[in-house]
Amino acid sequence: MRTQVGIIGAGPAGLLLSHLLHLQGIDSVVLEARSRSYVEERVRAGLLEQGSVDTLTEAGVADRLHREGLVHHGIELRYDGIGHRIPVTDLTGRVVTIYGQQEVVKDLIAARLAAGTHSGNPAILFDVEDAAVHDVTSDNPRITFRHDGKDHVLDCAFIGGCDGFHGICRPAIPDLQIFERIYPFAWLGILSRSRPVSEELIYARHRDGFALATMRSNSVSRLYLQCTPEEDIKEWPDARIWEELHRRLGVGSELEEGEIFQKGVTPMRSFVCETMRHGRLFLAGDSAHIVPPTGAKGMNLAIADIRVLARGLERFFAKGETDLLDRYSDICLRRIWKGQRFSWWMTSMLHRFDGNDPFEHRVQVAELQYVSTSKAAMTTLAENYVGLPYEV
Amino acid sequence: MRTQVGIIGAGPAGLLLSHLLHLQGIDSVVLEARSRSYVEERVRAGLLEQGSVDTLTEAGVADRLHREGLVHHGIELRYDGIGHRIPVTDLTGRVVTIYGQQEVVKDLIAARLAAGTHSGNPAILFDVEDAAVHDVTSDNPRITFRHDGKDHVLDCAFIGGCDGFHGICRPAIPDLQIFERIYPFAWLGILSRSRPVSEELIYARHRDGFALATMRSNSVSRLYLQCTPEEDIKEWPDARIWEELHRRLGVGSELEEGEIFQKGVTPMRSFVCETMRHGRLFLAGDSAHIVPPTGAKGMNLAIADIRVLARGLERFFAKGETDLLDRYSDICLRRIWKGQRFSWWMTSMLHRFDGNDPFEHRVQVAELQYVSTSKAAMTTLAENYVGLPYEV
Repeated sequence: MRTQVGIIGAGPAGLLLSHLLHLQGIDSVVLEARSRSYVEERVRAGLLEQGSVDTLTEAGVADRLHREGLVHHGIELRYDGIGHRIPVTDLTGRVVTIYGQQEVVKDLIAARLAAGTHSGNPAILFDVEDAAVHDVTSDNPRITFRHDGKDHVLDCAFIGGCDGFHGICRPAIPDLQIFERIYPFAWLGILSRSRPVSEELIYARHRDGFALATMRSNSVSRLYLQCTPEEDIKEWPDARIWEELHRRLGVGSELEEGEIFQKGVTPMRSFVCETMRHGRLFLAGDSAHIVPPTGAKGMNLAIADIRVLARGLERFFAKGETDLLDRYSDICLRRIWKGQRFSWWMTSMLHRFDGNDPFEHRVQVAELQYVSTSKAAMTTLAENYVGLPYEV
Repeated sequence: MRTQVGIIGAGPAGLLLSHLLHLQGIDSVVLEARSRSYVEERVRAGLLEQGSVDTLTEAGVADRLHREGLVHHGIELRYDGIGHRIPVTDLTGRVVTIYGQQEVVKDLIAARLAAGTHSGNPAILFDVEDAAVHDVTSDNPRITFRHDGKDHVLDCAFIGGCDGFHGICRPAIPDLQIFERIYPFAWLGILSRSRPVSEELIYARHRDGFALATMRSNSVSRLYLQCTPEEDIKEWPDARIWEELHRRLGVGSELEEGEIFQKGVTPMRSFVCETMRHGRLFLAGDSAHIVPPTGAKGMNLAIADIRVLARGLERFFAKGETDLLDRYSDICLRRIWKGQRFSWWMTSMLHRFDGNDPFEHRVQVAELQYVSTSKAAMTTLAENYVGLPYEV
């Protein structure tokens, strides 16, 4: 099989890359290790920056997003039992949209399968096994894999490494510089069939730990509690979860208890690899960087990477110019480090650090007081939250 | 001897308190353990917020400050060898003024001695020994001390504990809650007879450590280098200091080498005690809180404390009302914690932390890039630098 761009991973990054390339007449094939239903149901991030929505809209894959997405104009920071609204849209002129990552994935899979490929290749192969990349520093890289019990080779001009943190693409790059921070806590997250606590997200700092009240729709709440990384979910029967959410959020009867239909522990990690390119292999999204979820930046950084990569590949195939591809890593890393900084800052400001000295605790509260009273400080939060301007 | 307010310590806090009280017809005596020449020559902070200048101006002790002080409208942040100006005045409409703390002390001592006291008591006693406070929870607190070889008692209605971090007033308060952070570095500071590097301050982050170029006048430079807390000043001959300043500041021939006439190591500490009041004893300035010097907040926080304390005492003596005195600690601590947060943030952003993981290093640079490119982020730096609004 031969294509112009071989893409590993059918998450938002890989699928959006494939779709943007298709719109420019560039052929690609997406190889995904999991089944279609698995990737369409996988619960992940759920908040889109305005630029991400614009990118998906321009790509023609945002009809359902605009119908079902919940547009938000602010967030609430709660500490010492009192809520303080950050009027994000008043401060920036921009909005954020609540729309689950798996919904983005569904829309992109539907679009890719409906459009097909210019070459007649399948647009996406699911349940691919043993994918491996070869000759990435040559002009003719290859991906070998097994599918339907047979060995295949995908010859391509470029490879998009969009296969996530545990994927095979990053390990194929020698001598990467790794930057990592493991946090001493995690998030216990639930999905509940209940009305959201509030129309907007509530980020709560409490002496017993962070809590976050968000939503997937007007009838499904997404609620999180700071917990330990080793937390045993079995020790969290529903009643305990609700009790803890009530205490930490402190919003009284606004927190409606519903049927909990999903429960899980998300570890917290900051991770960046430099560089994001090796020859004709380009990493994008989680394969190159992970942020803690506090800033809601994960999916948005992946989309930002893909904007740069898609345009770089377009310039190459249209004009033979490699300038943007050569700058891909630098351009992406500037935004990634800003996203890391913001995610680290939000995480530091809102979580309980065990072994915190009392000084750090007071500084944390002073930071929250400052952010919720200074217009300039609110604006720093708001402009990062809705997404800093794109370079490309 | 009897006075209305007995004040321990002839630093900016104690002297300003005495002077503001005098202007309201309230009698006070300042007791100082050191000699006049010692306190007038002691090299300390040198940057006044606009509110501090306004406070000194309203008190009528700022004539020389306005003649000799250097008014600044911005600062420069340098990292990766490039300078980025933060246009503080454009962002806030306010300025900062370079004027040494010992100059403020000289002006206040001169004003106090010229004005004298309403009671005929001496305004200031220098070289006081063995000062101790008594009965501070009664309506008739006393200060005992030795002066000129004799034992004395100063009866007063209130005591101002303005005797600095190592003073005797804070230890006289039982059950204080202490918040403290010792930093793993210090500042090696020099005074040099040479033209300042630039008209404005330069805060430089360098992989070998922080450096700061400031000034005392148009012909005296004040220059700092991050060093270890245990640094032996003997290992820093002048040539080594200049070499290191050249490397870290990276401003080429703009750094003029002059005669180094003062050299010292300043430890870095964050410290707050809560509460700042016990009965009729009120702590103000360094006796209650210390900030690392990076944010230039030390003297300014002392002046802000005194504004509140002086007005509280005025209300008490004029109307018998204790409401402001009762809120003294809360009002001051809100500003102090904002100052601590800002000083901690500036310190964290600009210093080299040994054992820094590479992730932290990159986040530090991302923070500097953000602060020097986002108007909102610049404004957060600028509005704290010129001084947040006073509550009282």
